[in-house]
Amino acid sequence: MTDHLFERAAIIGPGLIGSSLSRALRKAGVVKSLVAYDKNPATSARAKEIGVVDEAATDFAGAVSKADLIVIAAPVGAIGEIASAVNDHAQSGALIIDVGSVKGAVAEAAAQLREDISFVPCHPVAGTEQSGPDAGFAELFDDRWCIITPLDRPDEAYKTAINKAKTLWERIGAHVEFMDPAHHDLALAVTSHLPHLIAFTLVGAADDVESVAQAEVVKYSAGGFRDFTRIAASDPIMWRDVFLKNREAVLEVLGRFSEELAVMQRAIRWGDGEALEKAFTRGRSLRRAIVDAGQETAEPNFGRDKDGQ
Amino acid sequence: MTDHLFERAAIIGPGLIGSSLSRALRKAGVVKSLVAYDKNPATSARAKEIGVVDEAATDFAGAVSKADLIVIAAPVGAIGEIASAVNDHAQSGALIIDVGSVKGAVAEAAAQLREDISFVPCHPVAGTEQSGPDAGFAELFDDRWCIITPLDRPDEAYKTAINKAKTLWERIGAHVEFMDPAHHDLALAVTSHLPHLIAFTLVGAADDVESVAQAEVVKYSAGGFRDFTRIAASDPIMWRDVFLKNREAVLEVLGRFSEELAVMQRAIRWGDGEALEKAFTRGRSLRRAIVDAGQETAEPNFGRDKDGQ
Repeated sequence: MTDHLFERAAIIGPGLIGSSLSRALRKAGVVKSLVAYDKNPATSARAKEIGVVDEAATDFAGAVSKADLIVIAAPVGAIGEIASAVNDHAQSGALIIDVGSVKGAVAEAAAQLREDISFVPCHPVAGTEQSGPDAGFAELFDDRWCIITPLDRPDEAYKTAINKAKTLWERIGAHVEFMDPAHHDLALAVTSHLPHLIAFTLVGAADDVESVAQAEVVKYSAGGFRDFTRIAASDPIMWRDVFLKNREAVLEVLGRFSEELAVMQRAIRWGDGEALEKAFTRGRSLRRAIVDAGQETAEPNFGRDKDGQ
Repeated sequence: MTDHLFERAAIIGPGLIGSSLSRALRKAGVVKSLVAYDKNPATSARAKEIGVVDEAATDFAGAVSKADLIVIAAPVGAIGEIASAVNDHAQSGALIIDVGSVKGAVAEAAAQLREDISFVPCHPVAGTEQSGPDAGFAELFDDRWCIITPLDRPDEAYKTAINKAKTLWERIGAHVEFMDPAHHDLALAVTSHLPHLIAFTLVGAADDVESVAQAEVVKYSAGGFRDFTRIAASDPIMWRDVFLKNREAVLEVLGRFSEELAVMQRAIRWGDGEALEKAFTRGRSLRRAIVDAGQETAEPNFGRDKDGQ
């Protein structure tokens, strides 16, 4: 039995997401063979060494030119340049997808490519705080959402490409949603970019209270702080690019957050217990909805205190 | 063999912390028998029903007057009043501890009590986002830190009481640290109170972006948002009281956070990638220190995607 969707996939950037996708595509039989390319040859060599891909290419053109699926799994700041290089070397009919967290910038880059190849921008909303080929795993996309923001191209070839991209994600366990890039960038600013910015900021600010030693921050982190360090441990380059490329939407939702924070600050200063209690009551129902939607574990403390349950 | 430290413990408020402590004290053989009292009789009855205590008292004076250990496990806003009632009914020689997250206010209340009883303020830095007797478990304090902020009382009886309190926590798996109340309140403002305030605020602010539906917030929460909903699901009354009772320290660290956030906002607005990358790089080392100190799991995503590893 063979129901490969693709003969040969080129994974540009086999890091956490790229290598997870490699593993998932192979496990689900979506592709027949896989080649990895990375601007750092040690990364693609490592992906080959641990069996995530069949081949590590040192030559970009060689990797891309024989592939019918090209996955750009690089920080969003690099996608434009890589797309342009893909444009120079891809074979006719190739499907190109990315996995970037900002889609407006990717849509602009994708619209520049030749008409005989199809770039379908994708964002699988999944990840961990770790990086590199070793950190990936095939089940990363299981039950997670992948947002596709297709170009406005009326040709049949592109419509077919969109469907193939959709099928690809569904075959590896993800749910697919279509969206326009601007709405994606605002929605993800709320659910991903602002939370990361806040976590990075909180972890940074903990260093600033001179009279509290870092050893104390570490010891008493179970009071809540440790939760924030998970996403604050995420890849700095990837996140730098997200904020550079999604500036408008991030500043918009950050403005809303700062207003809300000022309201809380005033309630604390004035001793307004009623306002605080009312504000704090909103959290439980939203968490319950997220658990019910299969996007979070129901176990207390994320289940990390297993022996305690 | 019997090495009970106490004959009879009265647990005032057998919720998440109170019932976890009941379970732990019994499991470690620290107390011989346990009685629970709660201002809501259904809560103490439930604690008895699930076997967390031997007895559910409907009469406060009766519960307290026969106990040699009295645990006040109530929101910090209620501790003063409960301490005063304990003062009216406790037997001579009783040890009183609390588990409150703010210690300045507790120290003031504790200093008002009779000299033949000893109130040793305690704060076990442990918890989950859940509430009530059913949410507790004996291992909650395992490898967590308990901060004791003793009164400045020179008598031998009080020194003995401090040691008994220390032994109690160590017998149930916690590490003990001594601190003055003001330093506790600042350190915990950093590691616990500010993180909770930020999480409550972020979850609240997600409602405010009109064009992003709550269904989208839920679906794409795996991008980072879901992490914040855990502590934002914590008990609203408990947290209201924390902010009312630790106003000064919280406003101080919140000021630092807001400054840092303004710096990040400017870096985003100006497209200063170097500043962002530098700020984002700090997170990994702090998380590693927390994992190394045994205060956090090393597994990616808190280990909640178990099947994915």
